[in-house]
Amino acid sequence: MALRPTIAAFGQIEGQLAVGGVPLTRLAERVGSTPFFAYDRALLTDRVKLLRSTLPRRIKLSYAIKANPMPAVAQHLATLVDAFDVASASEMRTALDTPMRPANVSFAGPGKNEASIAQAVASGVIIEIESATEVARVIKAGERLGVRPRIAVRVNPDFEVKGSGMRMGGGPQQFGIDAEKVPSLLADIAAADVEFLGFHVFAGSQNLSADLICSAQRRTVDLILELARKSPPIRYVNLGGGLGIPYFDKDHPLELSAIAGNLAELLETAIEPQLPEARVVIELGRYIVGECGVYVTRVVDRKESRGRQYLVVDGGLHHQLAASGNFGQVIRRNYPIAVGNRLGNEAEEVVNVVGCLCTPLDLLGDNVSLPRAEIGDLIVLFQAGAYGLTASPTAFLGHPPPVEVLV
Amino acid sequence: MALRPTIAAFGQIEGQLAVGGVPLTRLAERVGSTPFFAYDRALLTDRVKLLRSTLPRRIKLSYAIKANPMPAVAQHLATLVDAFDVASASEMRTALDTPMRPANVSFAGPGKNEASIAQAVASGVIIEIESATEVARVIKAGERLGVRPRIAVRVNPDFEVKGSGMRMGGGPQQFGIDAEKVPSLLADIAAADVEFLGFHVFAGSQNLSADLICSAQRRTVDLILELARKSPPIRYVNLGGGLGIPYFDKDHPLELSAIAGNLAELLETAIEPQLPEARVVIELGRYIVGECGVYVTRVVDRKESRGRQYLVVDGGLHHQLAASGNFGQVIRRNYPIAVGNRLGNEAEEVVNVVGCLCTPLDLLGDNVSLPRAEIGDLIVLFQAGAYGLTASPTAFLGHPPPVEVLV
Repeated sequence: MALRPTIAAFGQIEGQLAVGGVPLTRLAERVGSTPFFAYDRALLTDRVKLLRSTLPRRIKLSYAIKANPMPAVAQHLATLVDAFDVASASEMRTALDTPMRPANVSFAGPGKNEASIAQAVASGVIIEIESATEVARVIKAGERLGVRPRIAVRVNPDFEVKGSGMRMGGGPQQFGIDAEKVPSLLADIAAADVEFLGFHVFAGSQNLSADLICSAQRRTVDLILELARKSPPIRYVNLGGGLGIPYFDKDHPLELSAIAGNLAELLETAIEPQLPEARVVIELGRYIVGECGVYVTRVVDRKESRGRQYLVVDGGLHHQLAASGNFGQVIRRNYPIAVGNRLGNEAEEVVNVVGCLCTPLDLLGDNVSLPRAEIGDLIVLFQAGAYGLTASPTAFLGHPPPVEVLV
Repeated sequence: MALRPTIAAFGQIEGQLAVGGVPLTRLAERVGSTPFFAYDRALLTDRVKLLRSTLPRRIKLSYAIKANPMPAVAQHLATLVDAFDVASASEMRTALDTPMRPANVSFAGPGKNEASIAQAVASGVIIEIESATEVARVIKAGERLGVRPRIAVRVNPDFEVKGSGMRMGGGPQQFGIDAEKVPSLLADIAAADVEFLGFHVFAGSQNLSADLICSAQRRTVDLILELARKSPPIRYVNLGGGLGIPYFDKDHPLELSAIAGNLAELLETAIEPQLPEARVVIELGRYIVGECGVYVTRVVDRKESRGRQYLVVDGGLHHQLAASGNFGQVIRRNYPIAVGNRLGNEAEEVVNVVGCLCTPLDLLGDNVSLPRAEIGDLIVLFQAGAYGLTASPTAFLGHPPPVEVLV
């Protein structure tokens, strides 16, 4: 069961889930309304500590703000990680409002327009180039502002990573510069007044196989070493991320130690001898925040229809689209779910947990075994720390937006 | 090709798509930013006229605000249709801000909590009961407010409608009261100080088969006649909707005349003789607004990757999730798409149109044949009038929200 270790990480107080040490019904009173997202500050800290204590010390940790851009989360993580990655001008503002230095913020993503590139140049962040057009925009903005832009080149590798939830490298891609085109782009960049720092390769995300991630990292380092032979000295190597978290019963947590061993070997045998000046970064979003958050929604109705029990809650897919199985999934599976104020009770019925939207897509738990829940009880969906609120259609049907708290 | 009749409905001016009679590049200047949604006022009017001239005069038209809750759209439609259906307290406010009388507003959906039911009772709208709990809440709110609640019972039928994009009736459901339980619920209602108006059956949505819709309407009327034998006089019959619109090349537009003929026969043979006092409503959202709107997004980059051409636009799935194929679809298909400022040009290349989000899910056109488009051109996605902006994760990656205009 995926649920038991998840509950254990948060802890229980008198039969209730605890978030940040606060029992759930008290937390709901403090928040003042349901549904809400709650992120556990200590779990975030522990997660970064786990990464620090397991990975080689030289590896820098970058947090991809897109996974959870709540300002309080970014402020907390700014004290713990080495860098931030942002995907839009708004995320860049969130990053720059923290103590994180602009030099340690990277800005990636296709379709960066003139305005956002000018903001990035003015800020002094690292702009990760995804196309030749972006190089021209960077140069133009630098000239206009009298600021020397700091750039890295995102490379679309010539290999694919198997086992990723989403593949973002190999074959034709909207992301990055095809590896074989990088040398000629570097020649253009060398002729311009920009500061070239190094390379970024991000081949895929949400991968639960340490073997596949290690293999991708080895091939990424090989590719970067090859590209580095024809480039100025490399001071920045972003190996991407892709470390997944378990969502379903069948999922096994990633073996972080295997990845750590692989990175140590790559540092020793390849990066340190050949790229001694490189700051080596791995970029993690979901892996840092995903398991540290819960989505809490209240039962507003119980009904039985033709032999099936329904719990109708005041939340739904408008806040947690992925948990409803409707965000790109082929097969719908249940996210871990519990009656957060009855953890001490045994499961005694099989129910469908449905949201309050007027659509059959709004299914949060399909035939799940739960303790009997009554109107007013608090249903908890776990693994809600990443790609929850911001990856959901919050305005759908006009219900109020949920509150987010960092506890 | 699904695209030709769609473009023809909007019209062209000097090789550009016209929305509300305004050529697209001029409209983009008027709006002041891309991406944006534009809804054509005249097409909305025409659509309601088509329904009025085709359907029997006695059929009342209700617009389901959830399909497009833009206040200007609701204001415009308030002058054209007979009723509004709302799915939340916020949609109820939008409806009540128009000239529509509260008596002609219905409030449906599972999970109506005490607060929203009290608002509905205070407003005087028709509350469509989805559970026994809601009956108790309505009675309590009515007593507290000294207002006699006006209710209808939403019935979960004992049959299913085939061919619907989404099935919302038949078998076990979170929606409505199982047909076989309605008589006992009516007995409870009869004992309370509430005004019982009639029944609502909504069996499914986005159906393109007139035969299947007609069959569902016949069975719905049979069911309501049967329930009416054991109920107080029926003054309200909501037959639901489910009328679909074509999205893909393979789709054929619905034969509205067949539905009109069926409704005329049902009125003459069943409803008028047996339910002479009933106001008969059909409830349409997507069918009224879906084809009257476009999503317009600007090309910010062109790139080639390993033999594939990409147009990167400044919009994406964060505004038009369904068009990216990630909102519950099993198979991704392209929505109709065009280069809105080059309608006069022949298709001359096959491209992928991708959004600006840092995810491979953000695909708006997969291998589509288009005239050659340059940076600055305007890509148009059609069939964007319903379930577009509000059914998309607008905060995803922090890009600015798009503007909506009614032209």
